[in-house]
Order: sequence, then structure tokens, then C-alpha cells
Amino acid sequence: MKTAIIGRGNVANHLDKAFVGKCGVVMVNPHTLGELPCDADVILISVKDDAIAEVARHLESMLPEGSNAIVAHTSGSKSMDVLGFMRHPVGVFYPLQTFSKDVPLDYAEIPFFIEGSNPDVATALKELAGLVSGHVHEADSSVRRTLHIASVLACNFTNHLWALADDVLRRNGLDFSMLHPLVKETCRKAMENNPGDVQTGPARRGDSGIVSAHLEALADMPGIHDIYEILSNSITERYHERNQL
Amino acid sequence: MKTAIIGRGNVANHLDKAFVGKCGVVMVNPHTLGELPCDADVILISVKDDAIAEVARHLESMLPEGSNAIVAHTSGSKSMDVLGFMRHPVGVFYPLQTFSKDVPLDYAEIPFFIEGSNPDVATALKELAGLVSGHVHEADSSVRRTLHIASVLACNFTNHLWALADDVLRRNGLDFSMLHPLVKETCRKAMENNPGDVQTGPARRGDSGIVSAHLEALADMPGIHDIYEILSNSITERYHERNQL
Repeated sequence: MKTAIIGRGNVANHLDKAFVGKCGVVMVNPHTLGELPCDADVILISVKDDAIAEVARHLESMLPEGSNAIVAHTSGSKSMDVLGFMRHPVGVFYPLQTFSKDVPLDYAEIPFFIEGSNPDVATALKELAGLVSGHVHEADSSVRRTLHIASVLACNFTNHLWALADDVLRRNGLDFSMLHPLVKETCRKAMENNPGDVQTGPARRGDSGIVSAHLEALADMPGIHDIYEILSNSITERYHERNQL
Repeated sequence: MKTAIIGRGNVANHLDKAFVGKCGVVMVNPHTLGELPCDADVILISVKDDAIAEVARHLESMLPEGSNAIVAHTSGSKSMDVLGFMRHPVGVFYPLQTFSKDVPLDYAEIPFFIEGSNPDVATALKELAGLVSGHVHEADSSVRRTLHIASVLACNFTNHLWALADDVLRRNGLDFSMLHPLVKETCRKAMENNPGDVQTGPARRGDSGIVSAHLEALADMPGIHDIYEILSNSITERYHERNQL
């Protein structure tokens, strides 16, 4: 399966690395499309969400009349329909991971979510993903949206809580690195269990005295105070009030 | 330094493991105190917060008249004053980590926070902690409260967000394990940088279209909806509104 990856960002670079040695792969500059192989079987558009449609239009004008290459984008947020105007079979080829420059990853562990404009396209894209990963699933826009919401909760928001913890510590002359071993162990524990089964902390224990003392101590950081309150209430509701009904 | 650890829980067990081969250490049953060595230099009370005072009273009645052992509790939440009634020098010996049964830890990385009723006690307890860890700090009740608040934000609340993400995924027939690689990489990235510098996601990008679509999709999970909203607003305030002032 000859694959072309259009893009120069982190996702494109990591996909290229993941495919090398597993299938023929060429990286293509999204602006010129100059290196585009005419005989590609799959063309992955791996550019910013808002640029996908434009790159696809340019791409269609460049491909030879006879080409039946599958064209897929790699975005979790965009519908497959953004490619719907093309005369080619189209799809989505979405790796659920955050990719940083020069940080190696174990691609075999990354889940890929695939959609195709017909079952043959889905099968071909799943095969391509299967060259890299042991975790390949079909997923339409609605499933990808659910995954995206869960990722925002589980990754973007947790990172923000670490930033807020960093704020609280700095303000008191302490350092977030003091929490690193605790954060890493909390993460390990949540991945080896259902996170809901290993919840700890004052709200989980129903220790309203400590919750109140912490809220009082956060009076001069109102943003953090309100987040502390809503999350403590959510934990209390889950582990205590529910059980009392 | 001959050390006795009173307790049978995870903290007591891990402290025992950490000290073995580094100093003379004996574990003591908190109910009978039967195995208590009369010549201990340091006695660590590692029991539930609410039991510390009672164990300390029992302990004082058991120790020989001449004993000048340092008595310290291992709680992050309790003041040193809970031991203030004792005729012994007292302190706090607090390892900032979550301890699970049978899960090995790299004790050298765990930060220990020490308080002593006088400078000599603090020095002795810091020496003891230094046998195990390369990260030993002095910390009074106020510092420990700050650390506790930051830990609740960085660990208890992040675990709860993982539980909520798990809820969202299950409800849609998906599985939290699909997010494991993303969560692990997010955690790695936050530990190798300042978390505030590596924030990603729709709110960070100022993508209010996606934030609104997610909030709409969460309309039937009002608890999660409200948490999504307050955390997105907090991110927006941090990265966008601030800059516009």
C-alpha cells in the first residue's frame, strides 16, 4: 500500500515515522504538493482542521484523471464530509494521541479510529492502521466527538489542574516538582484500575472539615476556589449522596 | 538511629520497607504496642489521622521514664500539636506519596516534609528521612496544607476527571483504556515542562465552536456539563482574556 502524507506538523511527522519500513510512504509539502506520487493508494491529509478542505481541493486538481487513491484526513474533530466533494473514495484516519516533536512514542499502543465512505475504504484504512497499531477501531463523527469530549476531560482539564496546583505551590514558595512522584503514581493507579474505584482524598472520605478548610484557604484565589468546590461536590455526589438515596 | 513504626497500614508498611537495611527498624502493632523497643530513638505513629492522639497517649504510658525518643506522626493533614501533650520531643514525618499495598515505589524520589518541636528534632528527623530520600524539606502545618490543597487539585481531582471521562465513554459503548496512551503522554509532558506551558485543547486554542458543541452534547449529563464549562472558562481566562487586558 503506497501512502502519501500531506503535512509538515507533528502528526504528519509521527505518522511518517510509524509507517517507515511497514509500507511505502512519502511525505508531501502541503503548499506545493510537489512530491505527490501519482500512483499513491492512500493519501492522508494531516494539516490543521481549517486547512483540510483547501488542501483537498488543491489535491484533487493535481491528481491524474485515472487515480482512485483513497483520500483521508487525520482529524478527530472534522467530519468526513469535509472531503465529500471529491470524486475519490474518502475517509478519516485518526490516531488518538498527542504528538510532540522529537518525543518517541510506542505507536503499537496508539488507538486508530477509522471511517470510510464505503466498506472497502474502511477495510483498506483499517489495514493500513493495522500495520502500525494493535488497536484499530471504526468510528464515525459521533464516536469521534465522544472520544474528543472524553480526551478534553481526561487530558486537557487534568493538565489545567496541574497548572493550577503549580500556581498554588509557587504562590507559597513551593515547587510543582514536589508533586511529581504523587502525580505519576496517581496516573499509574488510575490506568491499572477503573479510576472511579481508586478515588481518594478528602471529598471521597466525606471529610467536610478538610474540604471547608481548603476552600477557606483558597478565598483569595476565587477561580481555583470555585473549581475546588464544584469538583468536591461532584465527588461527594458520586460516592456519598448517591448511596444515601 | 533505631526506629519504631507504629501502624499496620500502607504508609507504615512502605516506610518499613524503605528503612530496611538503612537503619534498625521495628514495626509495632498500634493496638497492643507489644513489640515496642524501649531504646527506640525515633517512634513514628503511622495510623489514621483520628487515631493519632489516642495511640500517642497509649504510647506515652508504655515508654520507660528515662526515654527521650522523638515521637512523630506521618500525617499531612494533622498539626504537630496533636502530640503537644507528650513529655517527649515531637515532630511530623510526612512522605508525600500515595501508597498502595504490594506496589513497589522508588523511595529515593519521594519528598519528605519534616517538622520538629525544636531544631534538634527537625535535624534528627531530616537525617532519618535522608537515609531514604534525596528530597527532604522542612514544612510546618501551613506548608503541609498548601501541599495538601495542591495534591487534591493535581491528584484527587484529576483522578475524578478520569472517572468522568470513563462515564462518558462507557455510556457510548467505548472504553477508558482507549485513552490510556493519551493520558500517559499528557502526564509525561506535564512533568517535563511547566504544565501551564503545554496546555492544549479547544479552550486553549480559543475554539469556542467546539467548546459549545461539547457542552451541547453533555446536556444530558448536567454534572459533567457544569465541570466542562467551569474548566473551559478557567482555561480561556488564563490564556485569552488575560492577554486582551
